[in-house]
Amino acid sequence: MSWEEIAEKKRQALKNSIPSQWIIPDDLLPPADQADVTTFPRESGFFTERELELTSTNATDLLKKLASGEWTSTEITTAFCKTAAVAHQLTNCLSEAFFPLAISRAQELDEYLKVHGKPKGPFHGLPISIKDNFNYKGFDSTVGFASLVNEPATYNSTLVDLLLSAGAILYCKTNVPTAMMIAESVNNVYGRTVNPRNRSLTSGGSSGGESALIAFGGSRIGVGTDIGGSLRIPAACTGIFTIRPSFGRFPNSMTRSGLAGQEAVLSVNGPMAKTLEEVVLWASTVVGQAPWLTDPKCLPIPWRKVSPKGKLKIAVLYNDGIVTPTPPVSRALNETAEKLKRAGHEIVTWAPTEHKDLLGTLSRMFVADGGKSVQKLLEPTGEPFRPEMQAYADATELGVYDMWQLQLKRNELCKSYLDRWNAAGIDAVLCPVTPYSTVEHGKFAYVGYTGVFNVLDYPAVSFPCGVTTDKDIDAPYPEHKPLSDTDAQIQRDYSAEPVQGMPVNLQLVGRRLEDENVLAMTEVILKAVASS
Amino acid sequence: MSWEEIAEKKRQALKNSIPSQWIIPDDLLPPADQADVTTFPRESGFFTERELELTSTNATDLLKKLASGEWTSTEITTAFCKTAAVAHQLTNCLSEAFFPLAISRAQELDEYLKVHGKPKGPFHGLPISIKDNFNYKGFDSTVGFASLVNEPATYNSTLVDLLLSAGAILYCKTNVPTAMMIAESVNNVYGRTVNPRNRSLTSGGSSGGESALIAFGGSRIGVGTDIGGSLRIPAACTGIFTIRPSFGRFPNSMTRSGLAGQEAVLSVNGPMAKTLEEVVLWASTVVGQAPWLTDPKCLPIPWRKVSPKGKLKIAVLYNDGIVTPTPPVSRALNETAEKLKRAGHEIVTWAPTEHKDLLGTLSRMFVADGGKSVQKLLEPTGEPFRPEMQAYADATELGVYDMWQLQLKRNELCKSYLDRWNAAGIDAVLCPVTPYSTVEHGKFAYVGYTGVFNVLDYPAVSFPCGVTTDKDIDAPYPEHKPLSDTDAQIQRDYSAEPVQGMPVNLQLVGRRLEDENVLAMTEVILKAVASS
Repeated sequence: MSWEEIAEKKRQALKNSIPSQWIIPDDLLPPADQADVTTFPRESGFFTERELELTSTNATDLLKKLASGEWTSTEITTAFCKTAAVAHQLTNCLSEAFFPLAISRAQELDEYLKVHGKPKGPFHGLPISIKDNFNYKGFDSTVGFASLVNEPATYNSTLVDLLLSAGAILYCKTNVPTAMMIAESVNNVYGRTVNPRNRSLTSGGSSGGESALIAFGGSRIGVGTDIGGSLRIPAACTGIFTIRPSFGRFPNSMTRSGLAGQEAVLSVNGPMAKTLEEVVLWASTVVGQAPWLTDPKCLPIPWRKVSPKGKLKIAVLYNDGIVTPTPPVSRALNETAEKLKRAGHEIVTWAPTEHKDLLGTLSRMFVADGGKSVQKLLEPTGEPFRPEMQAYADATELGVYDMWQLQLKRNELCKSYLDRWNAAGIDAVLCPVTPYSTVEHGKFAYVGYTGVFNVLDYPAVSFPCGVTTDKDIDAPYPEHKPLSDTDAQIQRDYSAEPVQGMPVNLQLVGRRLEDENVLAMTEVILKAVASS
Repeated sequence: MSWEEIAEKKRQALKNSIPSQWIIPDDLLPPADQADVTTFPRESGFFTERELELTSTNATDLLKKLASGEWTSTEITTAFCKTAAVAHQLTNCLSEAFFPLAISRAQELDEYLKVHGKPKGPFHGLPISIKDNFNYKGFDSTVGFASLVNEPATYNSTLVDLLLSAGAILYCKTNVPTAMMIAESVNNVYGRTVNPRNRSLTSGGSSGGESALIAFGGSRIGVGTDIGGSLRIPAACTGIFTIRPSFGRFPNSMTRSGLAGQEAVLSVNGPMAKTLEEVVLWASTVVGQAPWLTDPKCLPIPWRKVSPKGKLKIAVLYNDGIVTPTPPVSRALNETAEKLKRAGHEIVTWAPTEHKDLLGTLSRMFVADGGKSVQKLLEPTGEPFRPEMQAYADATELGVYDMWQLQLKRNELCKSYLDRWNAAGIDAVLCPVTPYSTVEHGKFAYVGYTGVFNVLDYPAVSFPCGVTTDKDIDAPYPEHKPLSDTDAQIQRDYSAEPVQGMPVNLQLVGRRLEDENVLAMTEVILKAVASS
């Protein structure tokens, strides 16, 4: 079979895995040119009030009602499966769906509660969606390669085992870009995931199936991964919350990687959700399960209670010297800094001293194998490189000696960054997530604002700051002096009209392994922004 | 200058850095064929009673007397400098000596205590020796290469800064093998360090200058490093204590590496001392200084109080299936297991399931650069490869793709080991440190018993178990079936006579990042052994 045939069959199989009663009838189907489909659940009449109530209840409350037996997992799971099925039809956000399995597991958990009088674990009965690359026995983890279609996992990722033993329900896996190495979620097998807030825009990548599903309302908490921005970018593109955790907090082992064995920049996984509270809930619960006992790379650091200072010293990175944020993002950053000042926090300016070198290191490390890992996954089916992956086609392989020099250089940059942080005595860095609110398909051109913190391994929250793009204010810069070719391209491509009304996320970065603290500081910032 | 001339001048400069009053007079100098020189301080008359009292007081007590002002740092430091000077003349254990600087710093600290009425920090006034590769401004860190002679450090290692700000006195650096990649401490610049308990035997490597110095009495606490056994082996060869910590507990940045930039197997540093108590003192004090604030790779895990279970479940690895321990080591292991059983602990047998593959991975990773890193340090002076380093001369360089596959393989082995540990429900693994008590110069042939735990990143204590080699009991195995070529060679080389009376160390291994626990369990074991 050609890769096209494999892909076509896989897409068909995925479609077939949606029960017929959840297929949107033609007369309800929004026209292809309808941008915003997040209104569909409430306005189409396809969902019952009860279903809408269940899927719009946050995970904390769902877990309480599940634990007490007030609501059943069967009912909740069914509602989320149906919403996810619909989300997929409108945004192409899934890669695998196993709704009957999920519902039957929900029934078992309901039974368990009845028999034992207590929940199975801290996630008892809660549906949680997972990114395509998590292995779940019996289902594919293709990360967008035709050659990995119909190669169902023979073991679970460590996180999957943890979630299951904590009582969570897995019901679907979400789409990614090829090898998870593009900032939009598009690949040759499943095609492109679109943004439910505006389908002409990207939901970001690589956890962009997840962000689309959550923004649509088809999941309360989903799990994505991040090696250069893959959690924070899709959260930003859809206006939801996430944390790119420090490496070692959440279990990452036995998971499919796009660049298997690459460890110079470490991939991490983390939760995505519509509220910060749900992000914290997932994080504290997962760490509460002591994942270091089963994941050889996890750190035995319990989830710590922290109380951030009342007055924070926040360093704002307005511009990384490589790409100027587009007008709505710069405005969001300025307005947020002003609000924080008014709320009594100290704002200083952060210089991007090491950023260019950190990014140079990052991009060289990603293709240090000369693109062989990706090539070997394309070859068996003759699948071509996607144009976004050209760097992997063009790359030359490094020898290990040169790789060691690159690692030395990276270590110097990390030390320099930390020394600078200490000298400034700051609590956090506030900066863009991307140069965009979000962007039209195919135009995502820069991941530098997120990538640096992967090299540094600092925890970073991507959060909607309350600002949305406004075409009356956010006109292109009148006389922009490009900082780089990428900057020139991004400013040339920018227009306020297509991204009108899109939320703008910002990024809050904390010290390495102070994940609790960066989440708590985000809460402080949200309060300051809300009260301003 | 030829490398021979450079080396000759460096050795002379080192000799000249010893004040003339501390040069052993010819009439007191032990004959070259005197094996044991540890008796020298007490028996030669070269030391005063007071000097002997100071250098035989453990670090905990020294720190108490220093903090109260009862004893001065000047007096203590001077005594240790003199003893180190003598140790060097008898064992060739130093690479740098800066005694006047140390004594002047000691005077400053004594003055500080007088003026402020309190110590400068938790190590106030305590002399601490450091391995050659720690950078200390103004002094060489040659790691045995002629090309690095007279290239004094322009910055301090992070640990050095930490020790200094905690009030410690640095007074000398200790010898290592070339690139720190040989299990005996020998190189072309400084030559060979010998074992003060028996100078025809090795003090081990790569922290073998440190072990010789401490075993002689020239330091209470010294700091070494370990990437394949370099702390545990020299501790074993000289019958002292150490812990190979988990990576990230003690600060390691800004330190000279033999294989700079190599991170697939992580180098760590740790304390060496004559007592377990002093090892714990150093570890808890260093971690108490919050090294994660200044070292980008350190973990924010405070030094935790632990109380090990009264009854431990200990898995004994009697043989790794590659090299059978020589008779005294097997006997030590059997006797210790028996004593532990009698003390009420549960003893099970541990299988070396992953050991061979872990070691294959380790050795390939060390030479993955094709030996280029070592070659580039030899080239400038035309220094030849030492015969012990032949693997680095012969190596072929891996490409990064193959390196990634090796890392994948390593991760699988780590997961498998952890799963097996969990399934067995054990608290610790007890095993040999090396196949030897110690061994004659040039005969150290196997580091497999330590190296596996570097790949796994498990904390491991090397401790004298109370058994010493006895030629009347420890005859060679009568009919040994070699497990490997190395095994055949080791058993052929073995004879009880040359190692008569040498202490045997064993290794206790705990879960990753449970360094506190493996030290506490060692205490439990020492008690069981002592009371048996």
